[in-house]
Parts: sequence; C-alpha cells; structure tokens
Amino acid sequence: MDIASYMNELGQRAKDVSSVLARADTRTKNEALLGIAALIRKNAEAILAANRKDLDRAEKSGLDAAMIDRLALSEKSIVQMAEGVESVAALPDPIGEIGDMKFRPSGIQVGRMRVPIGVIGIIYESRPNVTADAASLCLKAGNACILRGGSEAIESNRAIAALIYEGLSTAGLPAHAVQVVDTTDRAAVGRLITMREYVDVIVPRGGKALISRLLAESRVPLIQHLEGNCHVYIDETADAEKALKIVENSKTQRYGTCNTAESLLVARATAARLLPPIADMLSARGVEIRGCEETRALIPVAKPVTEEDYATEFLAPIISVRVVAGVNEAIAHINAYGSHHTDAIVTEDYSNAMRFLREVDSASVMVNASTRFADGFEYGLGAEIGISTDRLHARGPVGLEGLTCQKWIVLGSGQIRR
Amino acid sequence: MDIASYMNELGQRAKDVSSVLARADTRTKNEALLGIAALIRKNAEAILAANRKDLDRAEKSGLDAAMIDRLALSEKSIVQMAEGVESVAALPDPIGEIGDMKFRPSGIQVGRMRVPIGVIGIIYESRPNVTADAASLCLKAGNACILRGGSEAIESNRAIAALIYEGLSTAGLPAHAVQVVDTTDRAAVGRLITMREYVDVIVPRGGKALISRLLAESRVPLIQHLEGNCHVYIDETADAEKALKIVENSKTQRYGTCNTAESLLVARATAARLLPPIADMLSARGVEIRGCEETRALIPVAKPVTEEDYATEFLAPIISVRVVAGVNEAIAHINAYGSHHTDAIVTEDYSNAMRFLREVDSASVMVNASTRFADGFEYGLGAEIGISTDRLHARGPVGLEGLTCQKWIVLGSGQIRR
Repeated sequence: MDIASYMNELGQRAKDVSSVLARADTRTKNEALLGIAALIRKNAEAILAANRKDLDRAEKSGLDAAMIDRLALSEKSIVQMAEGVESVAALPDPIGEIGDMKFRPSGIQVGRMRVPIGVIGIIYESRPNVTADAASLCLKAGNACILRGGSEAIESNRAIAALIYEGLSTAGLPAHAVQVVDTTDRAAVGRLITMREYVDVIVPRGGKALISRLLAESRVPLIQHLEGNCHVYIDETADAEKALKIVENSKTQRYGTCNTAESLLVARATAARLLPPIADMLSARGVEIRGCEETRALIPVAKPVTEEDYATEFLAPIISVRVVAGVNEAIAHINAYGSHHTDAIVTEDYSNAMRFLREVDSASVMVNASTRFADGFEYGLGAEIGISTDRLHARGPVGLEGLTCQKWIVLGSGQIRR
Repeated sequence: MDIASYMNELGQRAKDVSSVLARADTRTKNEALLGIAALIRKNAEAILAANRKDLDRAEKSGLDAAMIDRLALSEKSIVQMAEGVESVAALPDPIGEIGDMKFRPSGIQVGRMRVPIGVIGIIYESRPNVTADAASLCLKAGNACILRGGSEAIESNRAIAALIYEGLSTAGLPAHAVQVVDTTDRAAVGRLITMREYVDVIVPRGGKALISRLLAESRVPLIQHLEGNCHVYIDETADAEKALKIVENSKTQRYGTCNTAESLLVARATAARLLPPIADMLSARGVEIRGCEETRALIPVAKPVTEEDYATEFLAPIISVRVVAGVNEAIAHINAYGSHHTDAIVTEDYSNAMRFLREVDSASVMVNASTRFADGFEYGLGAEIGISTDRLHARGPVGLEGLTCQKWIVLGSGQIRR
C-alpha cells in the first residue's frame, strides 16, 4: 500500500470512531486510561527491549548525544509514563460540561456545551513518552488521534502503541481511537497535515524546522508552539531580592526549556543598583552575558549584544542584557524582539505592573514571578500537550480544554422566532 | 504601485496601529463609534449617491436581481447601519476582562485576560452595510482590520470608509485602524489571505465559491462560515402543535438564510399523525416537498428525494423529508448529511432530548425551538460578524468574544519555581 492510501485509511478510521469517543462516558474513558497505565507498568521490560533497538540504531547512525538522551527510556521513566496516564484519568472530564445557560427575551434558554474537537494529529520528535501522554489527553477529551512520532523512536512507539490498543479494547473502546503511524516514511507527515477531510487540528511538538515546515505546508489548522524568547524586565522600583531570585530562577533553573528567560531588561534608574549583584550571580553560574553599551559600563560582559541576540532563543547559558528607559521601552522591546511566549516584570509599582500585564502581547505575562511557571501543571491544568504561541483557539499552556470546543445549545418549549 | 506592494502597505500599517488599538480605552473606542454613526446619519445623501453609481454600473453589467437587491442602500438601511454602529458602542467592552484568578500551591495567582487578536481581514460580498458592521465589531474588540468588499460595491464602500476614517481621527484613534481595500483587482484577495506576517485571522462572509477558494489558498487561519444545511427532527413523543409551529418557522420564515431548515426528519411511530398537517402547512406556503418512500405513502410530494437533496442547502422553498426509525437514525442522518450548523429536535422525551443535544455534532443544537434562533442577536451576543461552522476558536454565532483571545496572567510576590 502506498503512503497516501495508508494515511487515508488511518484518517478514515479515526473519523469513523470519533463519534463513539465523543459519547464515551467518563467511567469508560478512565477505565481505558487506568488499563493502559497498568499495561505499561506490567510490560516495562518489553518497552525497554524495544527502546534498546531504537538506541542501538541511533548509536550506529551517529545521532547526537542530546537526541539519544531524549530517546532513552529507563525503568524510572516508564513508571513516570504510567503515572502520567493515571494523572490524566484523575482529571475531571471536560466533555459534556454545560455553562452559562441564560434565558433570552424570546423565552429560549441559551448556553454552551463542551465537546471534543474530533480527530487530532500529533507530530513529535524523539521522546517516546509523548506517545502515552498525547494519547491519554486526546482520549480523555473524547478525541480520536493519529500520532506520528520520530522515526528514531519507531520501535519504542510501536511497543507503547500495542499496549494502548489493548487497554482501549479491554475497556470496550475502539482500538482505533489512538493510531500510531507505523512507518518512518516522511511522506506520512506530508499526507497527515493535508488531509483536512479527516483531521481537525494538528498539534506539533518539536523544533523550529518542524514548525516551519508545517506552517508552510499544512492545510489543517495548527495549534502551534513556536520558540520561547522570554524576558525578565526589572523596573525602577523592583525589590532587589525578588529581582535576583526571579532572574536566577528564570534563567538558570533549566537552560533548554521554552519558558527559560533569554533576555534581561533593566530600567536605567535602577541599573547601577541591581545589575552588579545579578551579574555576579549569573557569572557564578557560568552564564555568558551579552550586554548593551550601558550594561557594559556597569558590569563585565562576555561580548557586546547584537540585534540578532535580542531575537534569539539561546536554549543555553547565555543571556542578552539591555538597559532601557523604563516600562514603555521595555514593553516595546519585548513586543518587537520577543516570541509572544512568556514575559515577566519585577516591580513594586502598581501602574507599571498593570501596564505591563495589559500591553505585553504574550501568551503568559507575569508580575513578580519566574517565567519558569509558564507550564500546564503549574497553572493547574493537570497536564499539557504543549504551549501555544498562537492567538486563535488556545494560547499558552494547552491542557484538556484546548483539545475541546464548545457548541451552543438551546432549550426551548416550542419557541419560534418573530 | 503593484497590488502586492499595496496590500503589504495596508498590512504593515494595520500591524503598526494594532498595539494602539489594543490599549485604547473603552471611552475612546465608544466615542469613535458614536462619531462614525453620527457621520453616517449626516452623510446619508453622499452614501446614497455613491451607492447609485454602484447600482448604475451593476445594471449595465447585467448583475442579477438578487445581487442588486443586496447592493442597494436606502435612507432606511442607512439609518439601520448607523443604529448598528451605535449598538456596538453600547455593548460591554470585552478587552481587559480578567477571569478566574486562582491561587496555586506555589503561591502564584493565575488567570486569564481577554485581549484583541491583532489584525483581522474580512472578505465579503455585495452588502455595503457590512463595511460599517465589521469595522465596528473589530474596533470595539481592539483589533485593526482590513476590509475587502465586493468590487460591485466599491463606491458605496469608499463613501462609508471615508466616514469611518474621519470618525476614528476625530476620536484620536489612528485612521488606519480600519482600512478598506481600495481596488477591485482580485489579486488583492490573493495577497490578503497569504500575508501571515501581518494578518492574524480572516473572516470570510460570502458564498460557497469564496469559502472554497479561501480554504484552498489561505495561509492565514480562517473563521469560516460554510453552508447551513439545517434539520428539524420530530421525535415519537413530539407535541403536535410545537412540531407544526417549529417546522413552519424554521422553514418558511425566510428562505435565504443559513439557519433555515432544509430537511425534515420524522420518527416512524408518529409520521402518520404529524406529517399530514405539516404537509398541508408547507403546501399552503408553496414549499416543494421532496420525500422518501415512506413519506410518499403518507403525503403528496413534488418528487422523490435523492441522496443529493439530503446534502443540499436549498436556500429556497424546497424541503427534503425522511421518515426515520427514531432518534438514533435521526442523529446519524444529521451527522452524515448535515453541515454542522444548526439542528433541532421536537420531543417531550427527556432521554432523547439529552442524546440529541450531546450527540448531534453541530455548532447549535436545539430542543423544541426554531433553527432560526441561531443568530448572534438572539443568543445575546449583541451583534455577530458571522456564524462559524468551524470547531477551533469560535463555533456558531461569532460576536465580540470571537474577535478576541485570552492570554494568561500571573500575579506573584517573588515566587520562583522549585
């Protein structure tokens, strides 16, 4: 069978079972999830054996260490995978929720009911745990899904998929509720992102190259996650201790995450007071500082900052530092150079805090808190499928709600329109 | 200047002013709206003169009567246009609304703030009043907009646009907050729907041909409005009087609207009781009935119904009628042949009502009410920019809320992530 026919078959099956999933009750969906978690725990050895095959191939083909690290599973990570599925079972079921039923002058009562989107395509790279995470979230939200993992993880994903199929069938749900694309042919992605007749939305989880390809080629709407070029702005009235702690946590807790700060802005009036202790902290942690001219007059830096640096998500122990006139210039800088992901102000000034909250055009805007909080768990969503830098449908961390939509419902007693 | 450069200029300007609009306060936006409404009232003659030019050209070029009817303005319709703008001024401002701020175990308080989408492109056909309607809604929701009306209405749209620009400037807002594309070159649409760097979403208001083109060619997300193939299903326990009134209103109040019923389904057990009086009413109103075999055994019909009829939005005094086994078959029929717009059940049975509400996969699902209620005004949105048959972002009637998005806001007091 050629790739297009194979993908059409997956699409048609997903579409066919989507109505069954949409009306599946909470108990059945949770039974399937708990069953899948139990199967993952029980078959840890088989998953590890499959993962070993992927790792062997990856080492032979010379994959870089970071990718191998992301590909590798362990007994511990398999237990965490099962716990992740169990945590989704424990979340409230969003499907069928009815809200805001209001009577209208015509006598009808109008409100909205939360329902699944339908069929969700997820495209991701090496980490095999995404297979279980994404399947669980889609299932709980009543969607059929088609999962396309990285070719380097195909054996691991197959092993996990087999357990998901079994868990679904045992609970009495269609096994095709979750389908893992079982080919490493890249043409499969090309078909998945254009089969609008079957797929309602694509959620990409991967690097810049993947997202750029999807933006250029996808005919299916995307819940996209672009890069996170996050800022911390230290305002004139910032508390010194809060500023130091927030910069430290935002920049140095982890270097490779999308909610890590890449840029520090400091109000001119406070730069001489606050930049030196922050620079000491960053240097002690081995962070390279690239500073503007005014910054360089106050602290030692590795090199002068460039326009390109301001627009860069380093994902590394590097930070760009700029002295700005105040909150206006900070907001303008963030909106111009940032990636609309997550930005924080440190301030004790009420008006500046409010202006920053309102005017910074990012998915998450924070006052006196670390950018590292931009996360589905930290926000109380229970789990996340990704962090959207889109504006439509879902913005910021996307949990179960982002995998649903709302239809209007009308309760009448024979009303007609005049 | 070529079309691409011209459109880029509009796009760049819209993007440039979008941040000004995003932070415009409610009073200023309302002043602009009320100013525009006053200018429309005052300049009714000038608008009518421009409209006469469009009508002359339309008659010369042999435009059909329905299109000319939609193109024509009158003193009355100009007053209604002004009233429409005033009614948007009277709506609550959605921008800046903060909801659901919850404390998390980490100590941060997390919630969402409603903000504009940014730049909205609207593509519409003959009716010139859409220029004022769409501009008002986009402005109130804090968005910049680029309006592309039908070439047959270019003079009318120019005249209305001039008043909008004046009203914006007088209120101290940038005149480029609203830009009407001032060319009839069709290439302008081609550029508008691909300039993702400037335009955040396209709202098309037009016929099937327009939507199909946009679906195929747009690189900007759409809030699409496809056709309305709406159903009324009469359940076994339906009240005879409610059924008759709801079918009459859903089908015959207006034939050309997207929330008009195009198909009638009747439960087998009640068909002999309820179909004859409904057929009498439809015949008396000149509606052509196309019926299935069982229907034809009970009432006189114009012709046998075909599969194609079931899938057709007639927009005319024609209705397809099918006898079904019961609610299951009705739901399956609607989900298979319908357009996911609006569907109603007439029933006195609680369980069937609940199943219909939950399982019919449409933007609006109703119990014992006319499909004609699917409308932004009837739902209490105050106004609508269209009715979306999409699932993502906005579903069903789209008012101010559909022209906004929500960002996350975090209020902290120095918290860092552990």
